[in-house]
Amino acid sequence: MSDIRQQALDYHEFPIPGKTAVCLTKPAETSHDLALAYSPGVAEPVREIAANPDNAYRYTNKGNTVAVITNGTAILGLGNLGPLASKPVMEGKALLFKHFANIDSTDIEITHNTPEEFINTVAAIADTFGGINLEDIKAPECFVIERELIARCKVPVFHDDQHGTAIVTAAGMINALEIQGKLISDATFVCMGAGAAAIACMTMLVKCGANRANIYMLDTKGVIHSGRTDLNEYKALFANDTDKRTLLDVIKGADVFLGLSGPDVIGAEEVALMADKPVIFACSNPDPEIKPALAHATRSDLIMGTGRSDYPNQVNNVLCFPFIFRGALDVRASCINDEMKIAAVHAIAALAKEPVPASVLKAYPNVTSLSFGPEYVLPKPMDPRLLPNVARAVAQAAIDSGVAAIPTLPKYAD
Amino acid sequence: MSDIRQQALDYHEFPIPGKTAVCLTKPAETSHDLALAYSPGVAEPVREIAANPDNAYRYTNKGNTVAVITNGTAILGLGNLGPLASKPVMEGKALLFKHFANIDSTDIEITHNTPEEFINTVAAIADTFGGINLEDIKAPECFVIERELIARCKVPVFHDDQHGTAIVTAAGMINALEIQGKLISDATFVCMGAGAAAIACMTMLVKCGANRANIYMLDTKGVIHSGRTDLNEYKALFANDTDKRTLLDVIKGADVFLGLSGPDVIGAEEVALMADKPVIFACSNPDPEIKPALAHATRSDLIMGTGRSDYPNQVNNVLCFPFIFRGALDVRASCINDEMKIAAVHAIAALAKEPVPASVLKAYPNVTSLSFGPEYVLPKPMDPRLLPNVARAVAQAAIDSGVAAIPTLPKYAD
Repeated sequence: MSDIRQQALDYHEFPIPGKTAVCLTKPAETSHDLALAYSPGVAEPVREIAANPDNAYRYTNKGNTVAVITNGTAILGLGNLGPLASKPVMEGKALLFKHFANIDSTDIEITHNTPEEFINTVAAIADTFGGINLEDIKAPECFVIERELIARCKVPVFHDDQHGTAIVTAAGMINALEIQGKLISDATFVCMGAGAAAIACMTMLVKCGANRANIYMLDTKGVIHSGRTDLNEYKALFANDTDKRTLLDVIKGADVFLGLSGPDVIGAEEVALMADKPVIFACSNPDPEIKPALAHATRSDLIMGTGRSDYPNQVNNVLCFPFIFRGALDVRASCINDEMKIAAVHAIAALAKEPVPASVLKAYPNVTSLSFGPEYVLPKPMDPRLLPNVARAVAQAAIDSGVAAIPTLPKYAD
Repeated sequence: MSDIRQQALDYHEFPIPGKTAVCLTKPAETSHDLALAYSPGVAEPVREIAANPDNAYRYTNKGNTVAVITNGTAILGLGNLGPLASKPVMEGKALLFKHFANIDSTDIEITHNTPEEFINTVAAIADTFGGINLEDIKAPECFVIERELIARCKVPVFHDDQHGTAIVTAAGMINALEIQGKLISDATFVCMGAGAAAIACMTMLVKCGANRANIYMLDTKGVIHSGRTDLNEYKALFANDTDKRTLLDVIKGADVFLGLSGPDVIGAEEVALMADKPVIFACSNPDPEIKPALAHATRSDLIMGTGRSDYPNQVNNVLCFPFIFRGALDVRASCINDEMKIAAVHAIAALAKEPVPASVLKAYPNVTSLSFGPEYVLPKPMDPRLLPNVARAVAQAAIDSGVAAIPTLPKYAD
């Protein structure tokens, strides 16, 4: 592990610090080039944009840019380490945006005192970009921040920790339940954790057919139930009218355990109590809510996913965020609405059912199964079909739901 | 001209909109690469930066980035067209930063109601970057904006329209006066225009030895004199205790005319009234305060500069801003102080006295003179020696003046 630590530090430091740079897409070699790129030629696109703001999409890179914006209050699983410390994560996100979807992404770390200051700052700079990806902002502030920014910005605003996680979780869950022969509308869910990702995941699962009455969410005080008076408005949405109070109360007979909390919060005892053919997504990173070896040793009829790349069924946001923004930018969507999110869920889920191409097999030489089944309910990040499949579905949903300024699908190379 | 117009629009639109993109400086091909670039490896540099903020310079691209920030209130010579319309100019500046000094630059356009909102926004995002280049912000707001941001930000803040213009103007002026056999301390200056650039230019000339009593600045109401009660605090610095009131009053016997106003504001009559061996820098773009042909036809003993690339002696900010930031970033200066600005003036002026290398001759096949003299008082933008010479001088001045966190000069390839 210390070897990986040094490798990661070296990767970030050498040969130059960081992971991204700016490059030029137009010639800048001659005086004539510079006369077009800057003074006096640049006055022409300026005038065209002043006459019609939409021309910014024609003459600048606005339409292919996404700002990755944070305040550093919830960095990975590390907590509130401040804006500057989050910079490697945001640059990493920019790297993923570029690598997977050819989106030009700028990281912005914001220092502020109140959520309102954060909101005002992002709203003030939003017109610079084609979209805004909020990242690593702690709950419950992230909810009001996202809601206000969606209302104030003309470009799509998407809090990936909520919705990216929710979309990929829902895609994997739909497939896992299908393999286990269960209907999502009948399944009983235990969600350990009640932060931004947990609330977004359960909200998405409800939109995909889960029955709210079958959902038991737990925070540090136990089951979130309708008798509790200490709930914020977001947790309150999942207050179950139940007399169950503890994890043991609710895990008994549950079809699904979704962990978005911390390491080793359940053990063999809890797993043994679950219904036949259960599904466990233990997404705490790097240490899941239960180790896969222990879970599988306890139950042979289990489907298990984690947040880690070294186990099957990795619930990884990178399956979604590059492509949902790709689709949104391609048809110049004004927002990322539920229709687009649900389209992403189904496109990701559907892709796991397709035979994988040779390039994917080659990228994962050590993976045991890459065909639809208990160990392969989600596509792999290196699957090149994610871009066309997810972006196309999202763009089509944007068009169909009336939020796309460009009403035709681009050609996506399959 | 319409051909150039279409060429400029095509340059910006095809094959993809805009002029800059993001590129990756680290591998992102394998799962192992991504495990270092993002989860779980990225947690390591996050922890290092949380422990010591200076590590941001070691593990992220912060130290090589400059944000080009505007509110679009004074775009080129086009006026207040708003933040979005200014985007091609800011992307152009990013292109110049990258091309000339390998600095990774992000444009940020800010929508705001009051200068205070603008200041708060920039201060909130400033930690993201290694430096901040303010651009195209109208006077007099630009003065308070720059002053406040310098006070609030930990990284260098530099309003290029003021100081870049002033540095290059001063460099050219020092050389022009030397060729004309005049001492800067004795010379009489007429400055047509009293905006941000004009005030910065005259302030810099005073720092380089000009006598404030010999400076006559004019705004739309005529000479700025100590009897006027309509002056803002910035213009008031140049209120001359004089009974001269008009351009004709002050141009008589003047050694220098500096135009930072608009097209064709002086003619043959005014030029004829100037002292022997005068200097005219007519910097209004694209149309100078007097056409060079008319000025030269009136006076054969004249040295003339303009803002245009198609005449000799172009006063072009690109001679300064990429390199002053290069020097500041290289030694991690906390600001860009007067010592660094004056070092840039003298480095640029000195370079014009050196024989130019073949690559520069080749880049300017139609230029009549590239040796120090009346038609060559400033280096050419394509001169590759600008980077080492100006950056080195600026970095050394930062070290000597005690504002450099890194106390040693990097190696600059000559």
